[in-house]
Amino acid sequence: MKSEVVCGFFMEKFEVHILGCGSAMPTLRHHPSSQVVNIREKLSMIDCGEGTQLQMRRSKLKFINLRNVFISHLHGDHCFGLLGMISTFGMLGRTADLHIYAPSEFGPILNQQLNAFCSFLEYKVVFHPVDTETFQAIYNDRSVTIYSLPLKHRIPCCGFLFKEKHTLPHIRRDMIDYYEIPLSQIGNIKNGADWTLSDGTVIPNSRLTRPSYVPRSYAYCSDTAYKPDLQPYLEGTTLLYHEATFLEDRKERATATAHSTARQAATLARDSHVERLLIGHYSAQYLDEAPLLEEAREVFPNTIAANEGMVISL
Amino acid sequence: MKSEVVCGFFMEKFEVHILGCGSAMPTLRHHPSSQVVNIREKLSMIDCGEGTQLQMRRSKLKFINLRNVFISHLHGDHCFGLLGMISTFGMLGRTADLHIYAPSEFGPILNQQLNAFCSFLEYKVVFHPVDTETFQAIYNDRSVTIYSLPLKHRIPCCGFLFKEKHTLPHIRRDMIDYYEIPLSQIGNIKNGADWTLSDGTVIPNSRLTRPSYVPRSYAYCSDTAYKPDLQPYLEGTTLLYHEATFLEDRKERATATAHSTARQAATLARDSHVERLLIGHYSAQYLDEAPLLEEAREVFPNTIAANEGMVISL
Repeated sequence: MKSEVVCGFFMEKFEVHILGCGSAMPTLRHHPSSQVVNIREKLSMIDCGEGTQLQMRRSKLKFINLRNVFISHLHGDHCFGLLGMISTFGMLGRTADLHIYAPSEFGPILNQQLNAFCSFLEYKVVFHPVDTETFQAIYNDRSVTIYSLPLKHRIPCCGFLFKEKHTLPHIRRDMIDYYEIPLSQIGNIKNGADWTLSDGTVIPNSRLTRPSYVPRSYAYCSDTAYKPDLQPYLEGTTLLYHEATFLEDRKERATATAHSTARQAATLARDSHVERLLIGHYSAQYLDEAPLLEEAREVFPNTIAANEGMVISL
Repeated sequence: MKSEVVCGFFMEKFEVHILGCGSAMPTLRHHPSSQVVNIREKLSMIDCGEGTQLQMRRSKLKFINLRNVFISHLHGDHCFGLLGMISTFGMLGRTADLHIYAPSEFGPILNQQLNAFCSFLEYKVVFHPVDTETFQAIYNDRSVTIYSLPLKHRIPCCGFLFKEKHTLPHIRRDMIDYYEIPLSQIGNIKNGADWTLSDGTVIPNSRLTRPSYVPRSYAYCSDTAYKPDLQPYLEGTTLLYHEATFLEDRKERATATAHSTARQAATLARDSHVERLLIGHYSAQYLDEAPLLEEAREVFPNTIAANEGMVISL
C-alpha cells in the first residue's frame, strides 16, 4: 500500500475470502456460509456458520483485523459460528470492539448467549440492528460504505453491498521528478493542490496526477429467491456473489424454499451488467458444482464457482 | 451380536469414539470435546463442542442411533455444537426424541435457542436437568445405568459414569448339542432354567451355561481439578477418561483454572485401580501430546492419549 502512495501503480486491497459456501445441510465437502471482505486490511465478515472461526484460522486472516460481522439472516448455517468466535476472541485477549450487524430479532438472542457464555470478555460486542426491508447505508468509513440489500427469503433476510469510495488521484512520479517537487508536498498534491515554480509559473494539478481507478463494489446476495428488482442496486457491480442453491431443473424446489437456481443468479448478473458473478450456497445434493457453474455460464459467461479457501481480488 | 446369543464367544459392544479432545482454545490439531459411547448400537454423546456434528459424520456413526446427549458443563467448548446438530437432525427428518442431560441452568438457554432457530423440528428435544453436585443415577435402561460424577471446575460441572448391567450367562453350545435341546429353549436356559431329559434326569443350568463376563464401566471426567475424593466412584473402572490439560510443570496454572495435570490424572487412575486411563483435553499450547502421555505413564503405565477418530473397545 505504501508503494501505491508514491508510484500510483497499485490499487488498494479489496479482496473477498470464501470461508464457506455450502448450504443448510452440513457436508464434508463445504462449510456453511461465511466470507471475509478485506478492504485495506480492515476485515468485515459476512455470515458466520458453525466452524467459521477455524476456517478463518486456515485462511491466515488475522482475527484482530476483524471489525465487523454482518449476518444476513437467522438461519443456523449463517450464524451458528458467531458465539464460538466471539468467545475465542475473548480468550485471545481482544480489547477492540466487535460490531455485529444483523436483523433486529438477533439482539435479545445474542444478549442472552453473551450473558450465559461470554461474561469474561474484555472487549465490547456492539449490536447494530439492520432493517432487512430497506436499501440503506448501514456502515461508513473513509474507504467504504456498506448498504443493506433487501432479499426475499423465508424469514427476514438481507444482503450487503460494499461500495468503495473514490480514492485520491495517483501522483505522476515523472512530473514530480521533473519539477523537483519535495516529497513533503505529495500529500497536498494528491488532495488537489497545484504547484508553483520559483518563477511564479503555476503547474496545474491535472499535470501532476492521473485520475484514480473507478471505485469498486461487491454485492453479497444469500439466501434469496430470484429477485429481479435488485437490479438497480446491483447495476455495474464489480463482483456479485449470488446464491445458486439449485439447478434450473429444481426450480420448483428453489421457489418453494425461497432460493435461486444457477440460471436465475446468472440472469440477474447479466441484467445488472455486473463485471463478474460468483455463485455459492450449493445444495448438499450436488456432489460436484460443475453443472451449476455450467448452467450459470450459459447465461453469464464471466461466472466463477465459490470454493473454500478461494480469494478473489476485485 | 447375534453370534453372541448362540455361541457366547463375543462380548456385547461397548465402545468409546473420540470426536474431539482439545480444550477451550480452538486449534487446527484438535476438535473441542465430544465423545460417543456406543453400547449395543445405542449411542450416547458426551459433550458437544463446535463442529461435533461433522466429526460424527466423519466417524460413520449413525445420527439416528443417537438417543442421549450428556453435557458436562456450560463452557462453549463443551456445548456450542449442540444447536447445530439438533437443527441438522431436524432437516434430516428425525422423528425420535432426543434427550439432553445437562446442568439445570442450560434449560432456559436451550429453550430460547430452540424457539429462535429450531421451530421446524418434527421430533422432541427432551431436557433433563442434572444436579452436578451429587453422585446419582440419571439414566437407566436394560444395558446400562449412567451416573453423574461431581467434578470441581470454575462453574457447575459433572462427569458421567457408564456402568454396564450384568449380562445373561453364555450358552454352552456343546452341551446343547449333547442333550439335543431344541433352540426354542435357549432363551429359558439363558435366563436360568434347568433342563429335564425324557427319563426325568435334571441337568442343572450351571452345566448348560458359562457365567458371562464381568460388567464393564466407563468414566468421563472433564473438566476438573484433581479431585481424589472421586476414587470410591471410580474404583476398578474399566476405562477412565480424565482430562490432562497441562503438564505437571504448569500445576499452578492447572489449579488456578480448575484443570488437572497429566500426573494428577494418572495418580487418580492408579489410586482408583482402573484398568486403563485415557487422557485428553490438551491445552492448545502443546503441539504434541507425547510429553503428557509420558508424564501420565510414569505414574500409571496403562495410559493412552485420546485423538480424534480413535475408537476404544472396552
